[in-house]
Amino acid sequence: MNRRQRIVVIGAGFGGLSFIKKIDKTRYDVVLVDRNNYHSFPPLFYQIASGGLEAASISFPLRRELRTRKMRSCRFSYGEVMKIDTAGKTVTTEHETIPYDILVIAAGTTNNFFGIENLQQRVCTLKSTSQAIRTRNEILLKLERAAIEHDPARRRTLLTFAVIGGGPTGVEIAGALGEMKRYVIAREYPTIPQNEVRVILAEGSDRLLHTMSEASSRDALHDLKRLMVDIRLNKTMKSYDEDGLITFADGDTIEAGTVIWTAGITAETFDFKNFSPGKCPGGRLPVDDFNRITGTDSIYAIGDIACHADTAWPKGCPQLAQVAIQQGARLALNLNRPDRRRPFVYNDKGSMATIGRNHAVVDLRHVHFAGWFAWITWMFIHLISLLGMRNKAIVLLNWIWSYFTFSSSLRLILRPSCNPSSPGNKAAK
Amino acid sequence: MNRRQRIVVIGAGFGGLSFIKKIDKTRYDVVLVDRNNYHSFPPLFYQIASGGLEAASISFPLRRELRTRKMRSCRFSYGEVMKIDTAGKTVTTEHETIPYDILVIAAGTTNNFFGIENLQQRVCTLKSTSQAIRTRNEILLKLERAAIEHDPARRRTLLTFAVIGGGPTGVEIAGALGEMKRYVIAREYPTIPQNEVRVILAEGSDRLLHTMSEASSRDALHDLKRLMVDIRLNKTMKSYDEDGLITFADGDTIEAGTVIWTAGITAETFDFKNFSPGKCPGGRLPVDDFNRITGTDSIYAIGDIACHADTAWPKGCPQLAQVAIQQGARLALNLNRPDRRRPFVYNDKGSMATIGRNHAVVDLRHVHFAGWFAWITWMFIHLISLLGMRNKAIVLLNWIWSYFTFSSSLRLILRPSCNPSSPGNKAAK
Repeated sequence: MNRRQRIVVIGAGFGGLSFIKKIDKTRYDVVLVDRNNYHSFPPLFYQIASGGLEAASISFPLRRELRTRKMRSCRFSYGEVMKIDTAGKTVTTEHETIPYDILVIAAGTTNNFFGIENLQQRVCTLKSTSQAIRTRNEILLKLERAAIEHDPARRRTLLTFAVIGGGPTGVEIAGALGEMKRYVIAREYPTIPQNEVRVILAEGSDRLLHTMSEASSRDALHDLKRLMVDIRLNKTMKSYDEDGLITFADGDTIEAGTVIWTAGITAETFDFKNFSPGKCPGGRLPVDDFNRITGTDSIYAIGDIACHADTAWPKGCPQLAQVAIQQGARLALNLNRPDRRRPFVYNDKGSMATIGRNHAVVDLRHVHFAGWFAWITWMFIHLISLLGMRNKAIVLLNWIWSYFTFSSSLRLILRPSCNPSSPGNKAAK
Repeated sequence: MNRRQRIVVIGAGFGGLSFIKKIDKTRYDVVLVDRNNYHSFPPLFYQIASGGLEAASISFPLRRELRTRKMRSCRFSYGEVMKIDTAGKTVTTEHETIPYDILVIAAGTTNNFFGIENLQQRVCTLKSTSQAIRTRNEILLKLERAAIEHDPARRRTLLTFAVIGGGPTGVEIAGALGEMKRYVIAREYPTIPQNEVRVILAEGSDRLLHTMSEASSRDALHDLKRLMVDIRLNKTMKSYDEDGLITFADGDTIEAGTVIWTAGITAETFDFKNFSPGKCPGGRLPVDDFNRITGTDSIYAIGDIACHADTAWPKGCPQLAQVAIQQGARLALNLNRPDRRRPFVYNDKGSMATIGRNHAVVDLRHVHFAGWFAWITWMFIHLISLLGMRNKAIVLLNWIWSYFTFSSSLRLILRPSCNPSSPGNKAAK
């Protein structure tokens, strides 16, 4: 057989792009499928929501990336995957059906609302660029409405921002809201009494950042308190009704006009034909040491969606960018040289979170540090991880600007234009 | 009467902000009403649509602007004006009712579809930031779909971009699309044959830029042809059907997946209670030499929405930023010193348009020039007119970047997140 084998990669996140960079394009024909035409950078979504960065600064058009030396000759197919036929070996998007020899699923995770009624419609989320923009719009709308509201009870509800979930995303957005209260609202909303603005962070367990060290939890708690964030531990949200009432498992309630939900994620799901994958906790796909999905011979999963179920990581690797990048690279090398393939071993480089200006917490393998140096480290690591020189330059410029002005110019309520699609779209279906 | 008189200004465009900068805030209590929380920069909307600039780079949060020295003590009310009661002297937005002593209407214009059926739903427009973002999404979607379309007829339709209207906006977006075809599509869409991409510019009169000099029309025509734009003069569009068929008044047809409509504007309209203003051509409000609306004693109109009906400008001043800025300043000075008020006289500073990189046309009062120097002039004038140092810096950085890379990093299809509003919004109504 002379034909090159075709690899279809679903998802252009950290895992997918890491795989594509390393895979031998002379040996394989590679097709990348994504429902967005850009690579995005989830660790900074919270800064879109808080008006610190523009969406375009942390997004990178895939067609541009695929022109670079390492990726050239890889084809891009824009579309959402509707079906995977494991017998016929095809992936079907809303626009086309693509045959594959090898399939790499790197689709990541989405929000998990744990079946709480109507939650998806009522809360703000931070799992995609669009969701982060919508969260920004909601926060700014609440402030504008509070600025002209004379009824004290209504104003109090409008000015209560509840973040549910005390992981890195929850801590980071709560910190950003705390800074907005302190530096922006006080100056730009003269009719809003600053002390009426409440930022509440509710976490189900007994500490923040429970995947990190206890020292990090303690430092994060201290830094958030300094930003006047009201932290409630051991609080699990049970419901959020249409009048804005949050009810917790222990019966406590809060009236909040805005709920930012960071309390749960679950793997993206696919409609498999002729195959039923096992499920690990969080809906993840069980894989072996070589990231092959259990029960298949040519379908792999990498990153947040994969789970090494019964091997080195019984509960799955942590769902971090680093894991996805390392798994993508390892899988590519294994496919390039099947005779020399090696099992995946996670090299833990540490984790970090930032809490407002000048403060962050960093856990390396044997070291914890916090404060200003941790914050500089956090910024440096995130800057170098961004795709594209233009993005790096613009993000740096924005950060320096905000640092000295205690402000930002990005607080726009961009309402989508509501026209339905134009004729050409229909013609293309 | 000791109370300061209250001036309500509708619209934070060039006219409204120019007025607010100059009005004496110790003498008047000023309230600014706008349906957006930011000032935007319409001359560069076409660059949002073509992926050259981000929306946030040419938008500026009003609350930030109102903190500056010249504007401080002016209150901002976010909302769309629903009703103006001229007897009770109140303006009602979707959120509140504001009493006024003096009303300044600076609301500008919107698209005019001349009653052509279903046009608004089917075409892309460029009269607001949201519309420009939608236009960008549509252009990029067509390219993605064409990239995987195998049927030649369908692909041809998907790759046909028709710009209707040969004024400055039409010429500028057609030039930007011509450049996209030449530099971006050829490199980033390997499956799209470059010669299948068609950019058509249709103008109803016998020349482009008919508000400018004949020399400018000639130069613009030449520059657009160099960018392979197919120019059709004396073509008035009659209909655009759901299959993408454009029909012109002379019976000619074109199949185009995308129509960008720049062929008509009309004044924004208001629901006046107890008053019926006269109407000038284009739905503009007739004003006297002091910009007071005919038949009222305390309502003024400035900028694109105003028309000096029977005085120095029988057809109204040209609808340009310069006119709005000068009228805003003149009106403010007249209200500051009613004893020394002077009629408005337009000081024509010229007009300009750009056609791709290195080319622009400029008409000053007695001079026309074109080419590279005109292009540099165009960039300089637009840069210094942008609000905010950060915006100026970022736009300049983007322009320099694009100039040397023949590309841009902003070609993102940002689909809005479709969740309905959260509870707080409801509570606030």
